[in-house]
Amino acid sequence: MHLFYQPDTRIFELDEEESRHCTKVLRLSTGDIIHVTNGKGLLQKCRLNIGRKNVTYEAVESITIPKRSYSISIAVAPTRKAERNEWMVEKMTEMGVERIDFIVTEHTHKETVSRVVNLARLKRIAASAMKQSQQYYMPEISLITDYNSFINETDATTRLIAYVPDNHLTEHVVKKVVKDSGTILLIGPEGDFTPEEVKLAMENGFEAVSLGATRLRTETAAVAGCHSINVAQLL
Amino acid sequence: MHLFYQPDTRIFELDEEESRHCTKVLRLSTGDIIHVTNGKGLLQKCRLNIGRKNVTYEAVESITIPKRSYSISIAVAPTRKAERNEWMVEKMTEMGVERIDFIVTEHTHKETVSRVVNLARLKRIAASAMKQSQQYYMPEISLITDYNSFINETDATTRLIAYVPDNHLTEHVVKKVVKDSGTILLIGPEGDFTPEEVKLAMENGFEAVSLGATRLRTETAAVAGCHSINVAQLL
Repeated sequence: MHLFYQPDTRIFELDEEESRHCTKVLRLSTGDIIHVTNGKGLLQKCRLNIGRKNVTYEAVESITIPKRSYSISIAVAPTRKAERNEWMVEKMTEMGVERIDFIVTEHTHKETVSRVVNLARLKRIAASAMKQSQQYYMPEISLITDYNSFINETDATTRLIAYVPDNHLTEHVVKKVVKDSGTILLIGPEGDFTPEEVKLAMENGFEAVSLGATRLRTETAAVAGCHSINVAQLL
Repeated sequence: MHLFYQPDTRIFELDEEESRHCTKVLRLSTGDIIHVTNGKGLLQKCRLNIGRKNVTYEAVESITIPKRSYSISIAVAPTRKAERNEWMVEKMTEMGVERIDFIVTEHTHKETVSRVVNLARLKRIAASAMKQSQQYYMPEISLITDYNSFINETDATTRLIAYVPDNHLTEHVVKKVVKDSGTILLIGPEGDFTPEEVKLAMENGFEAVSLGATRLRTETAAVAGCHSINVAQLL
């Protein structure tokens, strides 16, 4: 299935990049069928019309794909490298993440954040990953600079923070996830959360969890976290 | 802990890159303590001697870190992009993979394999990841061009192939892993395994498993597979 993304359901035209993909890469013709999602659960089966100047389509069938019975929100400190942040967004999207918040923490390298968290670019990467993995919901992606407000305002059912205090045993995230509900998982920067950040999170209902026996980079932890929440639904 | 890698235990000198890291980045001095691993479980606490032309050290204490009670082997078709193969190796190493075999399958793009699977570079990446995640065992990494022989000769306790035939329900890998033993997981290329490749694997004791509800890219599947095998040990 050739899946395309058009968030605005009043528009029945592919943008320049998708048009090129359609005509030059996939070599589709007028009358061929494509599928278009709006990234909010709508999936339309459409018939193409390859014009001289643009590619348009008309919907012949529409269905709404229901959301999953559970949701994954990852609030992660941005890494210092744009490509690692991009890799994280791509892989979390493949795994069906609903929401990604890049949270600036005490130990986040603030000078580079605006350069390494390019939201427009990250959303394009998420759109590609959504289409490639044949999903119909785009993750929401944002940058949060006020950690305290973010922690205070979160309303997920299950609140977890990836944190393993020295000499403490922490349970693996997969054992703390409540099935069929919303989970938010906080992942800190390379320099970890500060004790104050952890304390604030715990005062707001967050529990400390482990992501495994080995020490994972921030972006690996984010992906492992998503995967763990998916796996937990089967247990 | 500053962890360095020297596979040859007869050598007590850091190579050029590690010497530079030692003196210019970490700014260590003669008499400072570093730790050195040989990537085969040996961890030595050492005292540095920063010479004019090189950096040497002497071991003051040695311990052998036992291997885990279980092992992860991933046999994965190389992707077409060198950087995706490199990401895979880095993240699998962070997760403690013991063995990575890049297997050339029918649908692998053979013309690019030698360019996108640079074993020397991949081993350097694995060494960095091993040190960064504070582990003491280097994964073995190789390129396998004969799928049939590889399948015939494997001797892992649990043999799994990431494959979901149409209209069949396959169990998640996390439910098929036998704790405290060796697991090998085969992951196919973007174009999937051929029916013949799957048949041969099954004739050699491989069982089909799923890596989750969403469709993952090859490199994401490899990392999800490692993570699943780690998680399975806790269940």
